[in-house]
Amino acid sequence: MPDEIVVIEGDGIGREVVPAAVEVLESLDVEFEFVAADAGDATKEATGEALPAETYERVADADATLFGAAGETAADVILPLREAVDSFVNVRPAKAFPGVDALRPETDVVFLRENTEGVYSGHEDRLSEDLSTLTRVVTSSASRELAEYACEFVDDGRGPAGDPDEGFTVAHKANVMRETDGRFREEVLDVAAERGVDADEELMDAFATKLPLDPSQYGVIVCPNLAGDVLSDLAAGLVGGLGLLPSANVGHDNALFEPVHGTAPDIAGKGIANPTAAILSAAMLLEYLGHVEEGQRVRDAVEGVLSDGPRTGDLGGSATTDEVTAAVVDRV
Amino acid sequence: MPDEIVVIEGDGIGREVVPAAVEVLESLDVEFEFVAADAGDATKEATGEALPAETYERVADADATLFGAAGETAADVILPLREAVDSFVNVRPAKAFPGVDALRPETDVVFLRENTEGVYSGHEDRLSEDLSTLTRVVTSSASRELAEYACEFVDDGRGPAGDPDEGFTVAHKANVMRETDGRFREEVLDVAAERGVDADEELMDAFATKLPLDPSQYGVIVCPNLAGDVLSDLAAGLVGGLGLLPSANVGHDNALFEPVHGTAPDIAGKGIANPTAAILSAAMLLEYLGHVEEGQRVRDAVEGVLSDGPRTGDLGGSATTDEVTAAVVDRV
Ligand SMILES: CC(C)[C@H](C(=O)O)[C@@H](O)C(=O)O
Ligand SMILES: CC(C)[C@H](C(=O)O)[C@@H](O)C(=O)O
Repeated sequence: MPDEIVVIEGDGIGREVVPAAVEVLESLDVEFEFVAADAGDATKEATGEALPAETYERVADADATLFGAAGETAADVILPLREAVDSFVNVRPAKAFPGVDALRPETDVVFLRENTEGVYSGHEDRLSEDLSTLTRVVTSSASRELAEYACEFVDDGRGPAGDPDEGFTVAHKANVMRETDGRFREEVLDVAAERGVDADEELMDAFATKLPLDPSQYGVIVCPNLAGDVLSDLAAGLVGGLGLLPSANVGHDNALFEPVHGTAPDIAGKGIANPTAAILSAAMLLEYLGHVEEGQRVRDAVEGVLSDGPRTGDLGGSATTDEVTAAVVDRV
Repeated sequence: MPDEIVVIEGDGIGREVVPAAVEVLESLDVEFEFVAADAGDATKEATGEALPAETYERVADADATLFGAAGETAADVILPLREAVDSFVNVRPAKAFPGVDALRPETDVVFLRENTEGVYSGHEDRLSEDLSTLTRVVTSSASRELAEYACEFVDDGRGPAGDPDEGFTVAHKANVMRETDGRFREEVLDVAAERGVDADEELMDAFATKLPLDPSQYGVIVCPNLAGDVLSDLAAGLVGGLGLLPSANVGHDNALFEPVHGTAPDIAGKGIANPTAAILSAAMLLEYLGHVEEGQRVRDAVEGVLSDGPRTGDLGGSATTDEVTAAVVDRV
């Protein structure tokens, strides 16, 4: 039976880049059953709900999901969907591509972001007219599970350097959040020690200074949820923006793949959006489902097109989404 | 009666750069009463306490404090000292100086960081073997007070552009922390509207992508405590590091000034530390105490030395701390 892939285009350029990524997947010698589902601003307008229960169920029952982007409702869509696939880690590579203008072309890092707790578990209270609180949660179990994943990731040579001895860096703020980030830091370093993986650490503020100064000193970075959100977006700024970056929300038996970019309302509907991030997200999906060679072929095709093929406007070209997609399909 | 300035050198290069800054202050036609006090790793080793009660009291009773840096005990020293001066805002300019190597030389921003709450109010619990929590606090009163300060700051033309119409940007994560950052965002924008100050907003992750891509689009940035910590350190990476950046912890009737850098143990004790950040912190102290013209003279002298005077090793020169300090004193 072919793997079932739920496809959620969402809003804005999601409707253009997701079909492009599906086209690339369909051009391969791998059989998938694609199932369309709805979510986002337009869905909310039509049905009253940004994320219909049917979509949630479909995603939860699928083998994997490819998601585009949602507008104003982004948090209402993506946070429950991460839960639907039972995702404990958000994998965010940030790499500068040859021929693409980047502030720090030598950047090549992968963030492994905790994907279930921190400030995102989100219990908030309005305790008085003046005062609100948020309960930030850190558990040893989630911290250790993330760390186990990080150790395997590094051991498998999936880090940017591809060198199984490279290890990872834990970024945290345990000098202030002593109990919560202290727990996170301790558990992650403990798992690394048990598994014989090299791990060092950096305060997240110091990391934010040092990454732009010299990204080459980092490879795999393991962090709590919000730290991973902000620091990986910082890395995106060093490689030229969110436009090219894919991501994976990996769970135990399911996963969701999404470009890091948003709906780009300024260019939506014109057929000129850059499909690269969505196509690279599809490559991550292929690898996740065991089609490692096909994933690599898609990646190589994308890099080839980026370096000497047609380019969309964001990269200084004038090609359409379709033209870029066709060029990628041609090379796969 | 001359203003009383508590001087805390702390650890590492704090012992070199703080005396340099005091020397610059003493070269001016302004009378101060300097009172030395102890804090930091060495103090903890000697007395058992990183921050003796006597130091806390002195700082609380002074007109202002000049602080250097503390090592391992940094959080135990600086967080209570911010409280001692009743500081509600941490003012952090990040500006690239002519002649100094910077990734983004056009960077010229000032962060106004909330300085009392957020995750820093720091109530943490170990609820079980597996689970710890931190209660993040946001109040309308602290948010509004910060916003009032920001409006005055902008109205007085103290923003980087120096243009009273420029306004500020609020950076937050209210799409996830809806109740707490939602409160912060709403109150800050509300005060801005009441005062007729132009304010826009940015999610903190988007800000982390956009600042490196184009820092010239930002001027004054208003943010919650931890966001301000991380985002201002990111800006430091764009102007060449923490080495040159001063900061002010401003309270209602007291304030503490400190370089953003740490103790730099690798070069401590050699007399080669760059005193610029400490001297610029002294310039902020002068301005805070009403000696605006003297503050400007110190600033101009520092910029002059940075562009064509002796340089310490971090800037590619071979001058000592004393030589740079003497050059600044010469120009004041
Ligand atoms: C939309 C938002 C809730 C989300 C997050 O904060 O995780 C986004 O910024 C991301 O990084 O995917
Ligand atoms: C030392 C630490 C507690 C402190 C902070 O987080 O505020 C430091 O990073 C700073 O920014 O002054």
